[in-house]
Amino acid sequence: MCPAPIIDNVDRGWVIPIGGAEDKVDDMTILRRFCQLCGGKKANILVVPTASQLDDTGPRYVELFEGMGATSKYTPINEREDCFNEDIIASLKEASGIFITGGNQLRLSTILGGTPVAKLIRSLNAQGTHVAGTSAGAAIVSEHMIAGGESGPTPTEDGVVMAPGLGLTNKVIIDQHFQQRDRIGRLLAALSYNPFVSGLGIDEDTAAFISPQGVLEVVGSGAITVVDPSELTYSSMAKARHHDAITLIGMKLHILGPGSKYDINTRTAIALINSGTS
Amino acid sequence: MCPAPIIDNVDRGWVIPIGGAEDKVDDMTILRRFCQLCGGKKANILVVPTASQLDDTGPRYVELFEGMGATSKYTPINEREDCFNEDIIASLKEASGIFITGGNQLRLSTILGGTPVAKLIRSLNAQGTHVAGTSAGAAIVSEHMIAGGESGPTPTEDGVVMAPGLGLTNKVIIDQHFQQRDRIGRLLAALSYNPFVSGLGIDEDTAAFISPQGVLEVVGSGAITVVDPSELTYSSMAKARHHDAITLIGMKLHILGPGSKYDINTRTAIALINSGTS
Repeated sequence: MCPAPIIDNVDRGWVIPIGGAEDKVDDMTILRRFCQLCGGKKANILVVPTASQLDDTGPRYVELFEGMGATSKYTPINEREDCFNEDIIASLKEASGIFITGGNQLRLSTILGGTPVAKLIRSLNAQGTHVAGTSAGAAIVSEHMIAGGESGPTPTEDGVVMAPGLGLTNKVIIDQHFQQRDRIGRLLAALSYNPFVSGLGIDEDTAAFISPQGVLEVVGSGAITVVDPSELTYSSMAKARHHDAITLIGMKLHILGPGSKYDINTRTAIALINSGTS
Repeated sequence: MCPAPIIDNVDRGWVIPIGGAEDKVDDMTILRRFCQLCGGKKANILVVPTASQLDDTGPRYVELFEGMGATSKYTPINEREDCFNEDIIASLKEASGIFITGGNQLRLSTILGGTPVAKLIRSLNAQGTHVAGTSAGAAIVSEHMIAGGESGPTPTEDGVVMAPGLGLTNKVIIDQHFQQRDRIGRLLAALSYNPFVSGLGIDEDTAAFISPQGVLEVVGSGAITVVDPSELTYSSMAKARHHDAITLIGMKLHILGPGSKYDINTRTAIALINSGTS
């Protein structure tokens, strides 16, 4: 699904996929920046812990955001019927930022998918509400979501499981815990099915802050691996047999450290040029 | 070190890095093709088991090559002084093919490096003797060898340990057990030190048969990941601090399945186009 249309030329909200395991103890660089973006002490952040089946996931993020001076609460969305609840819908409308926690992304897609809550998150984001998601919450923000797959660098014919996501962006496919769980093969497999998007492999404690204009900035302690298949000249995916390794010729690859940027519309990478340590 | 010069315009021998764990039981596609290249039933294959510290490594390969009808023996090179032994030097000169086994590539570089045996393997390859190496034996064939490093997809400032290799080719850097041990990060780190070569990440039971003209063909059951940094526009390696993730912009990436080719001189990838299964 394409992102919801904007109305009256207001800026969209930012979309912020996080690779999981973001720092919650020390500098909290990613969470703090999200909170600032949502208004700092005036922020009103709604936490959506649906992906998690742990009772303390929602309260923990609420405590962190409140510790930064923001107003925060979490929504008890555990079943599809909760997505029709008027109180929950009102809470979403009041929020300046929505934070989707980690867990199982198929819980997000199966519980939220097609409900008023999913539609509202899409339209609110188009009207300026910022949406961050970590781990499973990162996977769900794009139109096409990686739901599962195999570890390792080599893509295979059946190396990735795809599912529809929320569609806050249709310019990228996201994979998370990227360095830590060795996922470049499944990201390549996902891209080779239909090479119309860029692939973002986001390390843990690392986030892609995607601006309304579609320029993402790398924030956190790790890197984002960008795979751009726009110049792909050959893919064997269509004729591969089960389990076959896939031949892909002409991918572009950027490894982006903190501060680097990538324009998801023009597919241009820009390094952070600093003075260095020498 | 550059490859040794050719004499009287004879073709160089092939150079065949194998990703490790090549099939030794069923079709033995890779070993059989190497044996054919060396002359089939007229082949005389010398096995160099120096990397291994297991007594049966040499005899096992000898048995396999003899089972294909070739003549074969292995060299007992275990110390640097063995590399000055006249019998061993004579055996190398008689061989139509040299097979370097797996084990620890630092045993190969520290025992063979700079000795008459290393020089002879280089000059024999320039005069037409084919040289294959598996696992550690694959790492050693290039000018710059990956001796160790970290797993995972994201390259870091200290994510790879480099050492000089035999220098049978200086157009590629090789990493092996690529899919199985998740090594794209350390290959990217190796390339970012000096992006003048292509990187080959070779899966297990997969080989790069590199012709005298510098065209490699993928043989076996896995894939070869080719990373071409020739259009790299930015690398943060020079100013990265210890453990930092590295920013690299503009790498090209090809995933090559069996039958695909890559010209290491022109850096052109060519897919095997077959009729498919539909």
